Amino acid sequence: MKAIVHIGLKPGVLDPQGRAIARSLSDLGFGEVSAARQGKVIELDLKEKDAGKAEERVKEMCEKLLANTVIESYRIDIEA
Amino acid sequence: MKAIVHIGLKPGVLDPQGRAIARSLSDLGFGEVSAARQGKVIELDLKEKDAGKAEERVKEMCEKLLANTVIESYRIDIEA
Repeated sequence: MKAIVHIGLKPGVLDPQGRAIARSLSDLGFGEVSAARQGKVIELDLKEKDAGKAEERVKEMCEKLLANTVIESYRIDIEA
Repeated sequence: MKAIVHIGLKPGVLDPQGRAIARSLSDLGFGEVSAARQGKVIELDLKEKDAGKAEERVKEMCEKLLANTVIESYRIDIEA
């Protein structure tokens, strides 16, 4: 079983990486880019067979290690 | 128009971040995690109105700046 965790900054949190990307793209001639945000994706291979249980465990992983819940939000997709 | 760019390491490329995540999770008691991979997602706000043109331009951005195509592969999703 596979879990895909999408982690991104919460709205309103300053995103210096995103800004740097938008600015660099603009400098390179891609003036159509008005804003950029960067997030991360963590793909986990799990031995767990039960999707519900897997999601619960991955949520726990996010709260404990993967996401900084003060400034980041996360979304979990479970794939068979 | 919005473009979501998913960037990940090509298969076979060593992923130290992913390994560190898998190991840390295992140390924290999440023994069901057998492997982890980390990738990034860049969300771009574009002034471009034409989806086909937007995709072509974003592809150019990936090749020039966003992805290191020697070790990374990317996927572009265009959203209205």
